Amino acid sequence: MTLRAALLLAMSILAVHADDAWLRYAPLDDVAAREYRDVLPAAVTVLGHSALLDSAQAELLRGVRGMLGRTLRLEPQLPSEPAILLGSLADLRRAVPELRLASEPPDDGYWLHSMPCKGGRCIVIAGRNDRGVLYGTFALLRRMALNGPIADLDEVHAPYAPIRWIDQWDNLDGSIERGYGGRSIFWDGGHVRADLARAADYARLLASLGIDACSVNNVNADPRLLTNAYIPELARIAEAFRPWGVRLVLSVDFASPKSIGGLDTFDPIDPSVASWWQSRADDLYRAIPDLAGFVMKADSEGRAGPSAYKRTHADAANVVARALKPHAGLLFYRAFVYNHHMDWRDPNNDRARAAYDNFHPLDGRFDDNVVLQIKNGPIDFQVREPVSPLLGALEKTNEALELQITQEYMGQARHTVFLGPQWKEVLDFDLHAHGPGTPVKALVAGRVFHRPTGGFVGVANVGLDDNWLGNDLSLANLYAFGRLAWSPDLSAARIAEEWTKLSFGSERRVVDTIDRIQLTSWRAYENYTGPLGLQTLTDITGNHYGPAVEASERNGWGQWHRADEHGVGMDRSMATGTGFTGQYSAPVASMYESLATCPDDLLLFFHHVPYTYVLHSGKTVIQSIYDSHYEGAATVAEYVRSWKALHGLIDDERYQRVLKQLQYQAGAAELWRDAVDRWFLRESGIPDAHGRVGHHPERTEAESMRLDGYSIIDVTPWETASGGRAASCAGAACAAAFRFQRAPGWYTIEVRYFDQNNGGARFRLFIGAQLIDEWTADAHLPSAKIDGTTSTRRMIAGIGLRPGDIIRIEGRPDNGDQAAIDYVEIEPQR
Amino acid sequence: MTLRAALLLAMSILAVHADDAWLRYAPLDDVAAREYRDVLPAAVTVLGHSALLDSAQAELLRGVRGMLGRTLRLEPQLPSEPAILLGSLADLRRAVPELRLASEPPDDGYWLHSMPCKGGRCIVIAGRNDRGVLYGTFALLRRMALNGPIADLDEVHAPYAPIRWIDQWDNLDGSIERGYGGRSIFWDGGHVRADLARAADYARLLASLGIDACSVNNVNADPRLLTNAYIPELARIAEAFRPWGVRLVLSVDFASPKSIGGLDTFDPIDPSVASWWQSRADDLYRAIPDLAGFVMKADSEGRAGPSAYKRTHADAANVVARALKPHAGLLFYRAFVYNHHMDWRDPNNDRARAAYDNFHPLDGRFDDNVVLQIKNGPIDFQVREPVSPLLGALEKTNEALELQITQEYMGQARHTVFLGPQWKEVLDFDLHAHGPGTPVKALVAGRVFHRPTGGFVGVANVGLDDNWLGNDLSLANLYAFGRLAWSPDLSAARIAEEWTKLSFGSERRVVDTIDRIQLTSWRAYENYTGPLGLQTLTDITGNHYGPAVEASERNGWGQWHRADEHGVGMDRSMATGTGFTGQYSAPVASMYESLATCPDDLLLFFHHVPYTYVLHSGKTVIQSIYDSHYEGAATVAEYVRSWKALHGLIDDERYQRVLKQLQYQAGAAELWRDAVDRWFLRESGIPDAHGRVGHHPERTEAESMRLDGYSIIDVTPWETASGGRAASCAGAACAAAFRFQRAPGWYTIEVRYFDQNNGGARFRLFIGAQLIDEWTADAHLPSAKIDGTTSTRRMIAGIGLRPGDIIRIEGRPDNGDQAAIDYVEIEPQR
Repeated sequence: MTLRAALLLAMSILAVHADDAWLRYAPLDDVAAREYRDVLPAAVTVLGHSALLDSAQAELLRGVRGMLGRTLRLEPQLPSEPAILLGSLADLRRAVPELRLASEPPDDGYWLHSMPCKGGRCIVIAGRNDRGVLYGTFALLRRMALNGPIADLDEVHAPYAPIRWIDQWDNLDGSIERGYGGRSIFWDGGHVRADLARAADYARLLASLGIDACSVNNVNADPRLLTNAYIPELARIAEAFRPWGVRLVLSVDFASPKSIGGLDTFDPIDPSVASWWQSRADDLYRAIPDLAGFVMKADSEGRAGPSAYKRTHADAANVVARALKPHAGLLFYRAFVYNHHMDWRDPNNDRARAAYDNFHPLDGRFDDNVVLQIKNGPIDFQVREPVSPLLGALEKTNEALELQITQEYMGQARHTVFLGPQWKEVLDFDLHAHGPGTPVKALVAGRVFHRPTGGFVGVANVGLDDNWLGNDLSLANLYAFGRLAWSPDLSAARIAEEWTKLSFGSERRVVDTIDRIQLTSWRAYENYTGPLGLQTLTDITGNHYGPAVEASERNGWGQWHRADEHGVGMDRSMATGTGFTGQYSAPVASMYESLATCPDDLLLFFHHVPYTYVLHSGKTVIQSIYDSHYEGAATVAEYVRSWKALHGLIDDERYQRVLKQLQYQAGAAELWRDAVDRWFLRESGIPDAHGRVGHHPERTEAESMRLDGYSIIDVTPWETASGGRAASCAGAACAAAFRFQRAPGWYTIEVRYFDQNNGGARFRLFIGAQLIDEWTADAHLPSAKIDGTTSTRRMIAGIGLRPGDIIRIEGRPDNGDQAAIDYVEIEPQR
Repeated sequence: MTLRAALLLAMSILAVHADDAWLRYAPLDDVAAREYRDVLPAAVTVLGHSALLDSAQAELLRGVRGMLGRTLRLEPQLPSEPAILLGSLADLRRAVPELRLASEPPDDGYWLHSMPCKGGRCIVIAGRNDRGVLYGTFALLRRMALNGPIADLDEVHAPYAPIRWIDQWDNLDGSIERGYGGRSIFWDGGHVRADLARAADYARLLASLGIDACSVNNVNADPRLLTNAYIPELARIAEAFRPWGVRLVLSVDFASPKSIGGLDTFDPIDPSVASWWQSRADDLYRAIPDLAGFVMKADSEGRAGPSAYKRTHADAANVVARALKPHAGLLFYRAFVYNHHMDWRDPNNDRARAAYDNFHPLDGRFDDNVVLQIKNGPIDFQVREPVSPLLGALEKTNEALELQITQEYMGQARHTVFLGPQWKEVLDFDLHAHGPGTPVKALVAGRVFHRPTGGFVGVANVGLDDNWLGNDLSLANLYAFGRLAWSPDLSAARIAEEWTKLSFGSERRVVDTIDRIQLTSWRAYENYTGPLGLQTLTDITGNHYGPAVEASERNGWGQWHRADEHGVGMDRSMATGTGFTGQYSAPVASMYESLATCPDDLLLFFHHVPYTYVLHSGKTVIQSIYDSHYEGAATVAEYVRSWKALHGLIDDERYQRVLKQLQYQAGAAELWRDAVDRWFLRESGIPDAHGRVGHHPERTEAESMRLDGYSIIDVTPWETASGGRAASCAGAACAAAFRFQRAPGWYTIEVRYFDQNNGGARFRLFIGAQLIDEWTADAHLPSAKIDGTTSTRRMIAGIGLRPGDIIRIEGRPDNGDQAAIDYVEIEPQR
């Protein structure tokens, strides 16, 4: 046993892990454990020596000990009893020829096989390479954790595509752009962390899914990273990754030859620039021979790019790719290139066109070790977009599909939104690139046009939080990305069920509840944010969180939905609009072009229609907007109730954390519902057929309360406060009071207030002289402003009210948090 | 609402409490909650004003909100709807004459009554005093938490005895003598703590049981406490107690007039001494008008006492009592007086006689505000003793029964030992003091001889640990003491069930398991420590923990059991022994005097018999000793198994803590079993009829292993190590190895080692080259020696062994912890 193997074993015996996520290896129930104990050999023999094989062996011991309470025997040679045999097929054949091993797993793939041997049955985990052996080991353990049969194994598994990478957008100061799970596991204060234990833990999680490369710095790259000073630091990360078969990737800045390289140019066709990139690559590869490659974002959102010298993206990509080529490295070039100073007054302008317009003409001009990294939609990870037409338009260029695990526009881990169903729709969408039968997954994997490489990149942005992503249920997104990258044919339901069982156990009620929440959560989020292809109606120039319907309009960023008093939607048709539909192949284009065939879910992405336009669903657009927002908010309210029914069935720590998250989300969904619906009510002037929007008889606005110290302010955007206004406290303490005049009974009091992140205001609620509740506004929402980002609520249940009761709220501002109140809503208690 | 009431309410809304113990008020299940919601009024009206009534009101709100999720309405006057009415009967009658209230609760008692009122039913909680109202409130909440009916209440409850006190043995430096739950909640660094939140929490727990006084310093009292400097500090504790009706008590040192008072004497009949005590009492009462009194330990275990001046205990008690008398304070005089320099060679000497011999002659000589505080047994809180004969021998003296909640001789919170059954035996034991029908409870309550006062004192010694006593299950002892002090007729089973339901909820499997553990735990502990009246066979001159059979012999402390090669037991008969039996009334004396009628459980307390003597059980004494030790250890091993079946049914935090405690206890019970049994085997020379004692074929002694660096040492006492010896490491690292030669299979490896408290030695266990387990010896056992106190074990389950395997233990000493090993036992895994 190597020293590292011994250390791994020691760690697996003793370590307390932050969060093992889906690798918990909780003890199996007695029945399952007994079955496995009967068929699982007691010994394990590993053929060959490598850090990867050490990891496989340690993981096998750890998993079996966790699930079955048994420590497997490590046998250096095939013992005289049945064993689990790990190794490359070549080594296995050489060492134990009597086994007569047949199947040939491909690179990174594995063969799980059980066979008679030594008077019992041996289990063989064979790979062509050691990474395959590690993946096979994780697969066997996953199968056991899911109570699958292992007595008669004979399965070969191979990855669907060669590229299965993760991007992290970590900054060198330790912050993470669009990261919601705490600070960087790699960086702090401009340097790589001394303690990379979490980086190694992360690599283990990634390896369990078959992910084999990870970029460790923001695509908005800091050029300093390419200086020699950072090479030893980067090598340490690579070292932490390597035992798990995860290779380091760097994001690089295209202007580096000039900004840090001492050249006066970064023109890609300048030979000095080429040789500068070559020398950088050579230096890096000397220290990190398995560096997987670079990611580059150029000419995008203010980053420097080839346009500075009127060169093409192909010129830019190729000069870097050629430096990597001798080392078998890949250059990922992001296709996320668009003009963010577009004139919104020109109805022909359309950001959705940008990726295709920029890159389709360059098809065939990229070197074979360049991969175009293309986001799933033509805009930017919105709650719903059509599939990017560029994905089907490149026949001579390698592609990778960029999916976003971190929930930038999807609730930022404060909302549970399981993206498996969205990604499945993308992966399975047939772009008819080459006639029918060319789903996105096949295109990006390079299968349609027989490309040398291709695959999947997920932007994860995990952080130091115990649960990696800041939301326990959001871990399912990381799991789903990895599973789909390996096996895009899996269903979202199957993946959700796997994840739930691995993470929370197999108790039926737990699995059913969590799966139902996960599988309905994307639709729910779409319903209460931006349905019908409106996209996420949020503050698109700022924090991308909270409702702000007009934030996308009248600016150069091009996320327009063109809602006005007459109608809504962006006309992207060929006939009357921007012509974006024409970027698709004919069958797809004609589906989107025609109102008759365009699906409701994307209608307003492709067409501008009056509010009274009748959808396939039979509802008018405006009523559908109203209804879907109510439906979405109701769905999340129900999540809270069904989660509560799991009390005692899962560990209390996660139960409480998720409960708090879902309760917040239910309040946020209500805010979204009201904000978007009241905006469209005012804009359209068409009332809600069910009389809900703008009518809240159970609500008392702060503006109408008796205020003591509080003053009324206008909230921006206006739709994020009920009545457009709130009461804000400028002094040391303020109060707002009103008289309850409804029937006596038991009620829940909802206080809708604003929790600014610059301080922790204190609130107290009294009924008459009786103090009923008090709390601090300290939820860490991502803004210091009084708006939809900070609007939240306190629910105070079980309050007996009598007509004439005075309800009074006292607010004490703190350090700029103004203890602002929107309204109080009093609902009869069920 | 007073400021304090508002604060209380605020605290009850927000505070995170260390451990609410049996006052958790967990949400009731839906069915029960619905029923209570239907019958419980929505409003509460408190008549009168006091801190006690504020506490009652806050507790009622807190309990109802916790259990039913509702906030009761505080109504200053009887509202126009049904209400819960709290107050003294006098106030209630005056304020709401229409209620026609009848029953008269006694002092500290309460009347729970429901009656038609305001179109529904009101619930009345009436007391004669405010403390009674508070107790009634706790009683109503307890009833609801236990799912008892509340629709038709009409019950008057009164305490069985006026005295229901708690003693704490806290030192001013913050340590606690014989305390196992962390440092003092009152004291730190010679002063009262700045933060007395835990003292207030404690008072709340005590009040919920009807305990109304608590001493806050060690009976081995620091005289400085009586100086004026401490008065404001003590007043702060009294203030923390007061809202819960708990009065402060101080332990005082009899020599104080001389040691701190500036007098040259502390002779109790010296007038200057009397006036010194008077002035101390007057000063204290000025600051703490409700001081309940003093506790005094004099002429005991080295403490100064009246013998210094040849005065009597009555002289000593009375001089202090007279100082308290004008303030209605009580003086508790401990009857724990004995000679600890007794000649063990004199067969007539008997420590058990001491309390009676010292105090019986003084009956009638104590003032009426003196209470003799008498331990339940004649020795000292042993696992089993007969009832102290003094309890039945005082007709003209107030008595209080001293019970020990802290588990000094009972496993020190590292062992779960529920003392309810022991205390019930004591309380119900009929001493025939005045003919039949004079159980201890009636005697100490003053009911038999019509004394003005009397009752119960419990030595609790809670500390800052979250769970107060260092063991979650031990909290049942505090609960049981309080419940029995109020209601000694309750059964131990009823109390255990109440406590379990209040603490862990009403799930049937949880209640059954915990109750069974609790109710069998005393007998189990007796079985594996000292059965047949041998008492706790421990190191009686030191830490009172761990086996040490001979520690009680051949010294002046008098806890002798007189075991030698021929027989065992202390002859206390009148006919041939010390005559102790003669201190009992005739019926009791004759029962103990005669071998024919003396119960087996106390046989060796009263009689010396040969090992071959046949018990009523039909077994010989020696076989009974062997068997009971095996039975006790097996019972605790079973506790671990049944506790594991509760996984997921109780909160994980307590589940894990208790599991760890029970696993340790199971190992300790095995150690006790082997130590005591091997001692008696060697002493008696009579083999175990079942061949177990001294025969451990599955055990490999460290002495017989191949040692590398380890050296063999003799362990003292010899019986606490298998073979009397252990392997101890003097270097930086040592190893011990041996060859496994049994059948292949799955095994549990038990490593029996010594965990000294002066360091954290590290251990690693290998099979061949494979690291199987590693751990640190950091269990905080109460000794730095290698003996039965520090002997513990590591259980390593699920290990597949094959003949020829080399099992090797590596030990790395740390700071004096010598990584000592006793043996390895290998058991086939079930």
